Formats: sequence, structure tokens, C-alpha cells
Amino acid sequence: MLAVTILGNNSAVPAFDRHPTSQIVSLNNDNFMVDCGEGTQIQLINYKIRRSKISRIFISHLHGDHYFGLIGLINSFSLLGRKQDLHVYGPAPLQQLIELQLKVADNHMSFDIHFHTIRNEGILVDDEQCTVKCFRTNHRIECYGFSFAEKPAPRKLLIDKVQALQVPHSFYASLKAGKDYITPDNTVIPNAVLTADPPAPKSYAFCADTKYDESLLPHIAGFDMIYHETTYLDHLRDLAQFRFHSTTRQAATIAQKAGVKKLLMGHFSSKYDTLDEFETEAREVFPNSHLALEGVCYRVL
Amino acid sequence: MLAVTILGNNSAVPAFDRHPTSQIVSLNNDNFMVDCGEGTQIQLINYKIRRSKISRIFISHLHGDHYFGLIGLINSFSLLGRKQDLHVYGPAPLQQLIELQLKVADNHMSFDIHFHTIRNEGILVDDEQCTVKCFRTNHRIECYGFSFAEKPAPRKLLIDKVQALQVPHSFYASLKAGKDYITPDNTVIPNAVLTADPPAPKSYAFCADTKYDESLLPHIAGFDMIYHETTYLDHLRDLAQFRFHSTTRQAATIAQKAGVKKLLMGHFSSKYDTLDEFETEAREVFPNSHLALEGVCYRVL
Repeated sequence: MLAVTILGNNSAVPAFDRHPTSQIVSLNNDNFMVDCGEGTQIQLINYKIRRSKISRIFISHLHGDHYFGLIGLINSFSLLGRKQDLHVYGPAPLQQLIELQLKVADNHMSFDIHFHTIRNEGILVDDEQCTVKCFRTNHRIECYGFSFAEKPAPRKLLIDKVQALQVPHSFYASLKAGKDYITPDNTVIPNAVLTADPPAPKSYAFCADTKYDESLLPHIAGFDMIYHETTYLDHLRDLAQFRFHSTTRQAATIAQKAGVKKLLMGHFSSKYDTLDEFETEAREVFPNSHLALEGVCYRVL
Repeated sequence: MLAVTILGNNSAVPAFDRHPTSQIVSLNNDNFMVDCGEGTQIQLINYKIRRSKISRIFISHLHGDHYFGLIGLINSFSLLGRKQDLHVYGPAPLQQLIELQLKVADNHMSFDIHFHTIRNEGILVDDEQCTVKCFRTNHRIECYGFSFAEKPAPRKLLIDKVQALQVPHSFYASLKAGKDYITPDNTVIPNAVLTADPPAPKSYAFCADTKYDESLLPHIAGFDMIYHETTYLDHLRDLAQFRFHSTTRQAATIAQKAGVKKLLMGHFSSKYDTLDEFETEAREVFPNSHLALEGVCYRVL
């Protein structure tokens, strides 16, 4: 199960009760946080997301609306007595900034933080559940997007057939892993007879802050869902270019060219009180475009 | 006119829709901010306080719940195109922390920030309107309280008498400053005949985070209003001592011994859902004790 909950969908300055960027990527029992603008810990309370489930935090870049809430979140984790390790990924000098603030407060931390400084594109996490990679986006300062890909689930046993052919329990794990079964009289039963395909592994990419750049395409090609910023409507295409941001149609074009299934849009400029037009414009290019709304959990299908 | 608006009255961890410490001290046309916990800029929006009026920010100490919102506020000031200078007062290494975060974001700031590192007790501001002083409190790390004292206003002209005695306009300023008037025939008219006392200058002190410590008394003696933290109810007196915080009765005792007129209480522990008992306990010692409630403006009388 892969799902994304939006905690903040606004750019730079808080406005219209919209908050700076933060998302929770839920992968089975784990919660990953992506970016952590100021007030994110309060958004977690508002939306009743269990802080203790957050095992890893990924920070795309060091503009304040993407990380000013991190130190407060870490501080609260400790005050609340967190025990489990926390892994934090982000560009330098994030580690220096956080450690300096912890040091001057002279706090005893209740848990260990492992910093992973991002210096290049590549794999950040690769475990039995998923692979998390980072990729460069085209922003004013060093900035990374993050892709989350589930590992294939084990094949599903067709239990009636497995029992009819008297496959021993000890071989079930091998069946799930795709192996054929050889009966005691040496008949080969192809795996496909005994198992069915598991649900396809899901994929999601967070494309961070970026101007329109097709170099993102290989990193997100064919993904089930992507988030791509749409700071501006398309009439501000020149301003977007100048500020290293994107418009609705640009995000939708990336989604369409990458052949993804669904586009979430966010990082809305505080110029905009209402957001309906973002969907209208994007859908002219890529019909399955949606506003990333705060508090909503988008399941990746 | 001296008044205090509470933006946050909770300690450490946000809870029960209470926010970390921040206050606005309004002095005629100027707004001073005292402490700036995470989310303070959103509280400013919630309570419709004009950010452009904030000329000086005083940070008591570098525990996160007292300053994590500062960088976001400064960042937003710049994004919103602030032009006027900002003065920031606080212990080292506040300046280093803020400047490092501004540097990594590679932002062009729209205004100048003047940092004033606090290293000792003394006068921070002394102008025609007021005197702001800082004084040490007894906390786990270096921590300062701030006192705000209005300058005496000019004496009030008794305009009927002034005109009857044909005092020239050019002498009005001297009358307001307390001088006697000498008529053309050398009669001395005592100032008290021509003017009345102005309203008494008001005073307010923010006593920051502190354990019970009577060394605060000389800094706040006779003040019109003080804020003193009451992290805990009195049954947790030992815990308060251990954590360098105060209880209701301790704050009220300070108020009573200092001979102040009114006590505001805040920095409530997230243990407490309701706060009524804070007033009940404190008023047993010092009757004019009040909860510092978020969004409320307390005029100093």
C-alpha cells in the first residue's frame, strides 16, 4: 500500500490557511516525510498522523518553506520521548544547521538521528519494501526530487490448487518467490499454475521545486503518480522561468511526456486565493491532474 | 499606550491549539516582538497584526520554543518586500544561526537586519518613547527577561489658563517640558498653574523562562504588569525546580514581592488541557493574576 498525505501545499509565505510544503508518503507500516516547512508538526497534530511512525525524512532543498519546520519536529520528537532512530536525508549543510541548533539548546536527545547528506543522484534507501531514489531538479539552488518504488510483492498462492497437489508447507515461500514445484514423482508444476500475479508494485515521485525540465522524465517515466509543483498559472510562464518554478501546463506536459498515470499539483503561489483554475488548465494537457489538497490522503492505484 | 498581545502561551511542544511563546509589545505606533516560537508568523496572520509594524524582535534564549519561528518570519518579511530595518536582540549564536540559514537559501534580502548580541544585563533601547532593558533569569541555559518602560509624556497644557495669560505659542513646548512661565512684566507663573500631570508612564516586564529567583525583583519592582512563566501547577514544584521552571504560586509570589499591579501567566506545560486551576492557585497568593490567553491584547493600565 502506497499513499501520500498532503500537509502543506503552498509556496514560500503561508496564506489562505495553506501551509508550506510537506507530505507524508506511507508505505505499508512506515511513514516517510518529504519536506518539512514551518508548522508541519502542527499539521501532523491537525491531521492525526502518528509522529512515531515517521522513520525517515527527506528534505529536497534548503529554501525555508521546505525545511524550517524540521528542527521543531525533531525537538518535539525528543521532548515526547521518542526512542527509535530517525534518518534524515538532505543537501549540505542541513546536518550542520540542525546540529548547531540542538547544541545551543543543550538538550539531551531521547533518540539517535542519522544524517545522510545528499550530494548526487542515486539510491537513498533500498530494503525489502521499497527503493527510494533522489534526482536533481532544476531550481535556483541545489534541489532534489525523490522517487518511491515498492518492491514486487510475493506471488499469491492459489490455495485450492496448492492443496489439491499436496505441495508441502515448507515449499510455500518458494512458490511465492516464483519457483516451479517438482512433485515426488518428478513432474514439474509450473509456478503459474499454483500462483497468481501479486498486485503490481506502485510508484510515486515527488518532483520538488523545479522549472520545466525534461531531464526529469527518465526518473519518473511510467510512474503511477507524481507530484509536480505548479507555483503559477500558465499566464505567468515567464515569471516561473525566471524564478525556477513551473506552471500548470508545464507540470501537465511533464506528466504527459513521462507517461504517468496521475498528477498531483502543489506549491501554489500566495497570489492565488482560489485554485480551481489550476485543475482546469492542467487538465487541458493531462486530464488526470489534481490539486494536492491539505489533509487529503491520495492512495496510489 | 502600552499593551501586550499574546501570540503563544504554551511551553515546548504545541498542544491543545496552544502555541509556543511569542508576544507583541505595542508602544504607541511601534510593535516589538518578544520571542518567536514556531508558527508565530501564522499567529500574526490569525490575529491580524501588521507585520510591517514590527521594528524590533527580542529573543530571550535559544530553546526552540522561543525562537524557531524567527527565521521563517524574517524570510517572509523579505518575500513580502519589507523595506524598513529590523533590529534583532538575542544571545549568541542567534546571529550565526539566522545568517547561515539566509546564506544557504541564497536569497536577496529586501531589508537590513541589525543583530544585537546580548551578553550582559543592561539597556537595549533608549529613545524618546521608551527604555528597554534586559536582565538575567535563572534558566538551564543563558536566558534574559526584558523590561519595557515608557518615557514620561509631556505635561498637559491647561489651554484655558494658558490663553487667559496670553502665553505665546512659542513657549508651549517649554510648558510641556515643565518650565515656569515669566510674563513680560516679570511675574513668574508656576508651571503647575498652566499644566496638569500627564498620564503616568507605564511599565511591563517579560520574565522569560526561569525558576523561582528573587534576584528578578529589582528589575521589575513596582511595574504595572509583568509576565512570569507558570509552566506547572504548584504540586509539581520539585519538577519545576529541576527543569528551571516555575509554578503558579512561585510566579504569584514574585509578583507580590515585587509589588507589581498585575501578573500574566503563561508557558503552560502540555500536560494541562484546561487552565482554570492556574488562576485559582496564583490568586491565592496574588489576586490580580491572569492567564495570558492567545489572541488577547492586555493593555497596561
